[in-house]
Amino acid sequence: MSSDISNMRVFTLNSNPALAREIVDHIGINMGKSTIKRFSDGEIQMNIEESIRGCDVYLIQSTSEPGNEYLMELLIMIDAVKRASAKTINVVIPYYGYSRQDRKARSREPITAKLIANLIEAAGADRVISVDIHAPQVQGFFNIPVDKLEVFPLMAKYFTEKKLEEIVVVAPENAGVTRSRQLANRLGASIAFIDKKRSREPNIIESIDIIGEIKGKSAIIIDDMVDTARTITTGAAALMEKGAKEVYACCTHPVLSGPAPDWVQNSELKELVTTNTIHIPDQKRIEKHTALSVAPLLAEAILRVQHNKSVSTLFD
Amino acid sequence: MSSDISNMRVFTLNSNPALAREIVDHIGINMGKSTIKRFSDGEIQMNIEESIRGCDVYLIQSTSEPGNEYLMELLIMIDAVKRASAKTINVVIPYYGYSRQDRKARSREPITAKLIANLIEAAGADRVISVDIHAPQVQGFFNIPVDKLEVFPLMAKYFTEKKLEEIVVVAPENAGVTRSRQLANRLGASIAFIDKKRSREPNIIESIDIIGEIKGKSAIIIDDMVDTARTITTGAAALMEKGAKEVYACCTHPVLSGPAPDWVQNSELKELVTTNTIHIPDQKRIEKHTALSVAPLLAEAILRVQHNKSVSTLFD
Amino acid sequence: MSSDISNMRVFTLNSNPALAREIVDHIGINMGKSTIKRFSDGEIQMNIEESIRGCDVYLIQSTSEPGNEYLMELLIMIDAVKRASAKTINVVIPYYGYSRQDRKARSREPITAKLIANLIEAAGADRVISVDIHAPQVQGFFNIPVDKLEVFPLMAKYFTEKKLEEIVVVAPENAGVTRSRQLANRLGASIAFIDKKRSREPNIIESIDIIGEIKGKSAIIIDDMVDTARTITTGAAALMEKGAKEVYACCTHPVLSGPAPDWVQNSELKELVTTNTIHIPDQKRIEKHTALSVAPLLAEAILRVQHNKSVSTLFD
Amino acid sequence: MSSDISNMRVFTLNSNPALAREIVDHIGINMGKSTIKRFSDGEIQMNIEESIRGCDVYLIQSTSEPGNEYLMELLIMIDAVKRASAKTINVVIPYYGYSRQDRKARSREPITAKLIANLIEAAGADRVISVDIHAPQVQGFFNIPVDKLEVFPLMAKYFTEKKLEEIVVVAPENAGVTRSRQLANRLGASIAFIDKKRSREPNIIESIDIIGEIKGKSAIIIDDMVDTARTITTGAAALMEKGAKEVYACCTHPVLSGPAPDWVQNSELKELVTTNTIHIPDQKRIEKHTALSVAPLLAEAILRVQHNKSVSTLFD
Amino acid sequence: MSSDISNMRVFTLNSNPALAREIVDHIGINMGKSTIKRFSDGEIQMNIEESIRGCDVYLIQSTSEPGNEYLMELLIMIDAVKRASAKTINVVIPYYGYSRQDRKARSREPITAKLIANLIEAAGADRVISVDIHAPQVQGFFNIPVDKLEVFPLMAKYFTEKKLEEIVVVAPENAGVTRSRQLANRLGASIAFIDKKRSREPNIIESIDIIGEIKGKSAIIIDDMVDTARTITTGAAALMEKGAKEVYACCTHPVLSGPAPDWVQNSELKELVTTNTIHIPDQKRIEKHTALSVAPLLAEAILRVQHNKSVSTLFD
Amino acid sequence: MSSDISNMRVFTLNSNPALAREIVDHIGINMGKSTIKRFSDGEIQMNIEESIRGCDVYLIQSTSEPGNEYLMELLIMIDAVKRASAKTINVVIPYYGYSRQDRKARSREPITAKLIANLIEAAGADRVISVDIHAPQVQGFFNIPVDKLEVFPLMAKYFTEKKLEEIVVVAPENAGVTRSRQLANRLGASIAFIDKKRSREPNIIESIDIIGEIKGKSAIIIDDMVDTARTITTGAAALMEKGAKEVYACCTHPVLSGPAPDWVQNSELKELVTTNTIHIPDQKRIEKHTALSVAPLLAEAILRVQHNKSVSTLFD
Repeated sequence: MSSDISNMRVFTLNSNPALAREIVDHIGINMGKSTIKRFSDGEIQMNIEESIRGCDVYLIQSTSEPGNEYLMELLIMIDAVKRASAKTINVVIPYYGYSRQDRKARSREPITAKLIANLIEAAGADRVISVDIHAPQVQGFFNIPVDKLEVFPLMAKYFTEKKLEEIVVVAPENAGVTRSRQLANRLGASIAFIDKKRSREPNIIESIDIIGEIKGKSAIIIDDMVDTARTITTGAAALMEKGAKEVYACCTHPVLSGPAPDWVQNSELKELVTTNTIHIPDQKRIEKHTALSVAPLLAEAILRVQHNKSVSTLFD
Repeated sequence: MSSDISNMRVFTLNSNPALAREIVDHIGINMGKSTIKRFSDGEIQMNIEESIRGCDVYLIQSTSEPGNEYLMELLIMIDAVKRASAKTINVVIPYYGYSRQDRKARSREPITAKLIANLIEAAGADRVISVDIHAPQVQGFFNIPVDKLEVFPLMAKYFTEKKLEEIVVVAPENAGVTRSRQLANRLGASIAFIDKKRSREPNIIESIDIIGEIKGKSAIIIDDMVDTARTITTGAAALMEKGAKEVYACCTHPVLSGPAPDWVQNSELKELVTTNTIHIPDQKRIEKHTALSVAPLLAEAILRVQHNKSVSTLFD
Repeated sequence: MSSDISNMRVFTLNSNPALAREIVDHIGINMGKSTIKRFSDGEIQMNIEESIRGCDVYLIQSTSEPGNEYLMELLIMIDAVKRASAKTINVVIPYYGYSRQDRKARSREPITAKLIANLIEAAGADRVISVDIHAPQVQGFFNIPVDKLEVFPLMAKYFTEKKLEEIVVVAPENAGVTRSRQLANRLGASIAFIDKKRSREPNIIESIDIIGEIKGKSAIIIDDMVDTARTITTGAAALMEKGAKEVYACCTHPVLSGPAPDWVQNSELKELVTTNTIHIPDQKRIEKHTALSVAPLLAEAILRVQHNKSVSTLFD
Repeated sequence: MSSDISNMRVFTLNSNPALAREIVDHIGINMGKSTIKRFSDGEIQMNIEESIRGCDVYLIQSTSEPGNEYLMELLIMIDAVKRASAKTINVVIPYYGYSRQDRKARSREPITAKLIANLIEAAGADRVISVDIHAPQVQGFFNIPVDKLEVFPLMAKYFTEKKLEEIVVVAPENAGVTRSRQLANRLGASIAFIDKKRSREPNIIESIDIIGEIKGKSAIIIDDMVDTARTITTGAAALMEKGAKEVYACCTHPVLSGPAPDWVQNSELKELVTTNTIHIPDQKRIEKHTALSVAPLLAEAILRVQHNKSVSTLFD
Repeated sequence: MSSDISNMRVFTLNSNPALAREIVDHIGINMGKSTIKRFSDGEIQMNIEESIRGCDVYLIQSTSEPGNEYLMELLIMIDAVKRASAKTINVVIPYYGYSRQDRKARSREPITAKLIANLIEAAGADRVISVDIHAPQVQGFFNIPVDKLEVFPLMAKYFTEKKLEEIVVVAPENAGVTRSRQLANRLGASIAFIDKKRSREPNIIESIDIIGEIKGKSAIIIDDMVDTARTITTGAAALMEKGAKEVYACCTHPVLSGPAPDWVQNSELKELVTTNTIHIPDQKRIEKHTALSVAPLLAEAILRVQHNKSVSTLFD
Repeated sequence: MSSDISNMRVFTLNSNPALAREIVDHIGINMGKSTIKRFSDGEIQMNIEESIRGCDVYLIQSTSEPGNEYLMELLIMIDAVKRASAKTINVVIPYYGYSRQDRKARSREPITAKLIANLIEAAGADRVISVDIHAPQVQGFFNIPVDKLEVFPLMAKYFTEKKLEEIVVVAPENAGVTRSRQLANRLGASIAFIDKKRSREPNIIESIDIIGEIKGKSAIIIDDMVDTARTITTGAAALMEKGAKEVYACCTHPVLSGPAPDWVQNSELKELVTTNTIHIPDQKRIEKHTALSVAPLLAEAILRVQHNKSVSTLFD
């Protein structure tokens, strides 16, 4: 088994080097040596600084904001790794950007999440490992194996330790009911959802209604990501107004665009719980926000892939 | 424009020739001549009986039960059409079978809906036209254009003409809330959902709960298909017990496996409304079941594709 | 070498589990754990019940009647195995269905044997192992390696042990003379052929003539498969009429459609010798039919593939 | 229709420019302007001398000896035509070289006929038109449409005009019986075959036997090609010895390697009838050899392809 | 021909809308309607606002700084256009970014210019039109047709009108001598080059030497692009020091990173002549810089492609 | 590591068996057993004479004159190796023919160097190892890894040992300045170039001029190949005329078409130094020609590939 580890190389790209370092520390190996710089005109200049011939290479990159830059870094790195004769190229994407563009909501729209799957395969990847992708169908956008990791156990454990009395898990919009039930199952909770009518324009909400019993309960709004935070903050307000005892939000990916941190801090939310799939810069850190690390999970998944052991049993 | 029509050929395969005939009648052309027979050992024997060189060919086939047989018919026909030098191969799949296998629900499962997309592309299709696919992401399983047609206008018109007093559109399970809202929007109705916990074993329900206001209302359970009918019949019973005034079911695709027609007929459902994307044999026809024809919709979509006109405006 | 075996997994699908069990017994390993069930509407539900990450997987499936069902089982299983991160996917197809559709006999026909090769590659197979395919050119339909196994040694050994006096190997139709010579070489026999004019309609024979010396000899009609048995039973009648001493039939694949077993039993054939590439249900078993097992041959071929040893020397 | 012709360009390459000129004369257009020269080191230098943007291009090239040179000319020309923005690239290969390498006769052999199909597709061809390919399965080596032309009508007409009394069509080896019957059908003749045992070494025959009635008949040996002429000359000798009245040979492709013309001229063959799919240089022309032109057939086929008319009806 | 124009749609993306508008004005059609916006987290949101079914679509986008953003815009737009059933997708890239990464200068580097070619093809483009790509071999990175446009005529005309007395065209580094000769040919000038030793680190020059006669001549430094302007400003200084009469720079693509405009303005260069393939924002405009428009050239090239006329004769 | 060697098989094809033998001697293994013969009509007959299942196969073939023949040998061998179940197929091409056709110099030309890359990939190669390819961009024509070996160290060492006094490395034409500098760097020399205007017709030179200081110096003309030798012999004459002390030529690949050896021998060149990437038949050997062996370099590169060690460090 140690020979398997000696044959693996883990490289971080620029989106979340802190998480990558946590991962290699858990695995107990050194970070692969590479440089990713910019030419004067912003073009990416990349070089791998050690031989990787015949190695199983793992590239760690979230395609979070600026997503196009980080995606191009990833594609260029895959090209370099392929031409440098790696044995396998395993792409670890803790946060898979553009995942919401997974269908044509209107005519003549792209399906960008599929395009990106095609680009990653065209560049030469052999496998994708990702965390809690917006729609499970995205796995089917790929023809290569995709190991998708769940954070429900992590989240459930965190909330269980809070010993809340009566919990209702709330889906923040129509499409999220499945997700709320999955967490509710682990917490023994009931569910409700916010019947939010969303405009076709991004980030504009039209009307809000709550369907299900929430009175006097500790509500946990669950979503795969927190972007502008409008969804969870207006949801929290509505839930408190309708009689919830307190409101938490539980969102895997901390996108936190623009003024989102302020909105959260100033909202009726008691706490926002996320993971660290996306790097959170200091200026976005707020008191109400707790970020649980997915590094142990990703490290274990990478090791299991490397040792040909089942990844799914991680979640049993 | 007439030259465009003179260049098109529409062929039916064996799954739903009645629908195909309705479609060519609407278009105003003859059905393409072909034979699809079986050899003694059940292998499909196919021949196209007229020249199709340079033609835009449309193949009409639902991959309904027996789905594997009908899918193979379609793939073999695509191969024959490709080798016979058609200009374009347009595959019209009113009901896209295996659409529920669109993600890995458990480890080491196939994603059959994606496999089938790959097979259709590998055989040589240039375009897919389908009706109300289980998950909109299936469109992204293809790299060729997919025109997906909606039946909401058809269904909404039918229920509007009933002049029901107060309507609630009910999602029969957690994942269907988005669909229920889409119909509710067109009917000016409220929504609710049945919090049904489904076992991993197929077709076994564990517990049922109704979330949302349904008392005294006319409930319309909406789903993309009716398979065993267990979902809608148990749902109807639960809704009546909780005080609904009456319960309709509105399901695009009449899969109607095994004893489903009997169950529907003997249930508390007032009416089951479907389309005719799947052929309904006489022995499955029951009094309570109304099947609206999608032939005008498909004929118009095919004509717009052939004339390079927008298909999406069909739904405005 | 034992480590190589520890890395292999053999799975049976539904077409011929008895043969598959014989094979794993010969190899000396356990059958891989999987379930292949049907949903209410006949769609295939498949799950692999043990981790196969990094394993060399062998799938055993004849695409015999119902061929479309068994082919889809195979394609779906390949998809599942691919997404479950197998190292290699080796498809063992003892009987390759649709092998007679290997060319366009008429205009605008499909070449289904090639389509199926494309589908198997598109699904993700890495290698095919098959027995006595109708035309050797089918091997060229694939871009992946195909190991094709011969049964001539098995058949020749069986007939040699009968100590027949003077043998003539008879091709049952114009295209089969090459095959008859191959067996004749091993038996030191002369050859003849039945000049059978076949209609384009399936299974209808127009006229029969025997070319070559058969008088007083033990005739062995050879073919790659016995389907309706009309070919070999009318052939046997003609041979006996023209003075053959006795007539055997030697056909690799026991397709045995419809009334074929009865026809054979009531014919002038002394014995029909086949292999067990296709499962023969009890109701098709007749006294005159002997089925030689290809399990030792397939087991040895699989082991040689797994150990990177020459497969061709199996036939020296 | 004239607009269709104005959009087509026919180019000859170096293997058979005389046939190509005959073809364009039949069609009634000028030959496309191109130059194919050699650099000092033998590399092919190619240039297309007129714009072909948006045109349907037809390239005429037999891959006869030197087959590798002519194949590379064809592949390079396809590349040039593709990059010059042709609308379609139609490859007319009157003689498809390497067609006998269509299966693995021994272990670890290539399947060169399939490789060449892959190379032609990889270079960018859209369609292949060929004449009487060795095995009909080669059509299935391609995923693009293949129009394969038959010369049976041409040959049958030629022999019918001879008013021979009693004809037997003779297959020169085991695999050719199907072909002999196809001509026999058109001549109302019986068939026989030469049971020739061929060594694995090329062009070496081991033993010869005639199966079928030939006494006093005019025998026509039929084959797809005449290469060394050993097959037909030794066959003619055997047939004459066994009592044939006279012997003709009818072979589509005049490969005529090495001393073949002399052997034919000095043999017991009365006449060798071929087509002109392969250019016959003056030094290979002999009195006994008649070459029927396939130019009218190819010209008509090209026109039908260009006008989207059925090619198969050419042979009714 | 007018019907050809009626079937074309030209869309601009965000990199250089002014150039795109000039192009459509030259062609005499309206700009295609589309919106390219950003979601809160910077992800690209794109929609095509008119039906393009069956149209020949031309997308105009330079992949200039920010190159990764503009490349992703282009790829996403191609995906949208493909799924919206365009007939052909023609990608007009006036400036092809990353073109300098066209080979592995060091081990384990990517070949980003090839990667981008692969991505553009994987997204679904049918043709590329570009201007003066860094290395002509980049054309060969594509399997689809590439029309590459030259600006030598435009540049030569501009300098000819200056009526300079004795001109020497100077390559600014070892690899540029071919390019300098091409302009020299058109100006009847001699050539020289700057023997500049470039470090492997980007934009750092090690030593400078001038090889060739420049004394008393008007020197024109030629390059495909001006990036940091270090090359041409230090070159100009060296040329003036060695006795040149005056120094011009002639660079197709005005990359003009960072302080480049200032450097040019304050250098010994008399004038920098570029085209407008890259948008030059007001703050980068300087007195010494002249930008010749490539809009007429691109408009004419697009029209010729649309009308299937030769593009190369544009440069005769 | 020895197990790695036991798993490798090196085969030579017909272009340069002497070099191949040198290579296997350096590696210390036996040459793989295969036969490459010709059928009567010149078609290639190939067979691999030992099992290579699961082996890492290395094929050694320069595509030198006759380049089309040798290329087809290589492609057919790749097909055979692929179908014989090799683990990896590594193609060693010491001289990559057609490398000068790496771009469209004129309209409607092919890009043959790219076509060949596509053909090699289509046939099934996994890796290419080549020496000093004409343009470094050719590496980007491939999507598989390309290890390109440099001969600068070998050449520099040879000339260093001559202890020449003052060296100028001369590029024989405009495009070769980069190459001349690379050798000059290793020799501490200055550079110059021959401003040779080449006609579009092959091998015809229009005018010659020398740019740079060469008086009294030992000049080394450097090029990637010597074809007709016109370039280096006329260059040598011009250099001697302009006062060079003596002139050497240093060209990696000895193409030596037609009368090239005579021209070199009778020229003012003191010595022509090449490698042995191309076989030099006895009749082409001349006194002035020294051929340095690349066998040690290729053997070491192959071993490093086999052992997954860095190839680039070979040149440090």
